[in-house]
Formats: sequence, structure tokens, C-alpha cells
Amino acid sequence: MAQYLAELDGVFVALADPTRRGVIRRLGRGPTSVSDLAREFPMTLPSFMKHLRTLEANGLIRTAKSGRVRTCVLNRERLAVLDDWLAEQRRVWEERTDRLEDFLTDTRENRP
Amino acid sequence: MAQYLAELDGVFVALADPTRRGVIRRLGRGPTSVSDLAREFPMTLPSFMKHLRTLEANGLIRTAKSGRVRTCVLNRERLAVLDDWLAEQRRVWEERTDRLEDFLTDTRENRP
Repeated sequence: MAQYLAELDGVFVALADPTRRGVIRRLGRGPTSVSDLAREFPMTLPSFMKHLRTLEANGLIRTAKSGRVRTCVLNRERLAVLDDWLAEQRRVWEERTDRLEDFLTDTRENRP
Repeated sequence: MAQYLAELDGVFVALADPTRRGVIRRLGRGPTSVSDLAREFPMTLPSFMKHLRTLEANGLIRTAKSGRVRTCVLNRERLAVLDDWLAEQRRVWEERTDRLEDFLTDTRENRP
């Protein structure tokens, strides 16, 4: 549970930046070399690499080196923690609606 | 568009903390006074108020004062930007799958 919470923190932090969300979106179209990817984002290479490291450290992307080329791949499964979290909130809202309905039904049934 | 991006940044930053996610979850069950809410989170009131201000500044909750009581309400609509962003990523993935299928179909049709 503590690990799930830390993972959630990390995923939200990693996605709280337009460049990092841009990388996620770009990698959704398929794996890309770091150098091709960097060319699409208007910033220095060290700044861009920092964003990639944040994404990798939080499990949203994976990188692998083959010869002189480092390739980035999206880790879609990691984004599923967001779906799970949103689904959990919806369950809380639905329980609330159910309780309200129960209350209204009880009130009607007990009306004199 | 720039505003949508800034809103997304803010929503992700606001949710990158377990206390703030806890407040979202708690308010999903219904509006609560700040003092009742604060009692559920083990930290000083000033620290807790800082979390509430982050949530309010990013539009995830609304607070209103009536007499001496300040009440917090969840702004569910704001969480919809997360659904929208996730849906957008899925569209990118599906387009990729469609392109792959087209490629495989073309390859098969053009086979000698």
C-alpha cells in the first residue's frame, strides 16, 4: 500500500510538466531514439535528459542502449495507476449517491 | 490551449501528494467543514491549510464561509481533465495500432 502511494506520487509528479507529457504522447506512437526525440523538444539536451530521467525513474518510460543508440519506449501499464485512482474516486461518489437514495427511500417509506 | 496545459500542470501537481489525494477522496463522500476535515489528517493546521489552498488554487475543491464555518466541496468537473488526457493518450495508441494493421494488410496484399 505504501509502495502504491509512492508510485502514485511519482506518476503525478512526472506528468505535471508539459514536456514530459509531450514525451509520453510522442512515445505512444512508437519507440524512438533519444536523439530523434530530443530534436522535437526546443530545449538544451541536458534539460531534456533530466525530463527523461524523471519519466524513467517513475516507471513511465524505459530506455535501452543498443550500440551507440539509446531507444525510449513508453510503459503504458504505468499510466494504468491513474485509471485505477480515478475509478476509486468514482466508486466513492457512487456509494454516496447510493446512500442518498437509501436515505430518500427510507424517508418516504416512514412517512406517516 | 496554453490555459488547458497550465490547468493540467496544476491538477497533476495538486494530486502528487497523498494528503491532498486523501482530501479529494474524503470530499467525494460529501462536503465537510474545514475543521472536521483537518481532524482526519495527522498534521498541524497550518500545514493542512496549505494543502487545501493548493487544491483550491488548482480548482479541485471550492470553499465557502457561512458564519464561522468554512465548508469544503469537491469540484468533480476538474478531475475530468485527467480523464480527457488519458483518453487522448489512448487515441494515440489506437492510431498506432491502426497504422500497424494497415501496414500488415498492405504487406500481405502486395506479397508476390
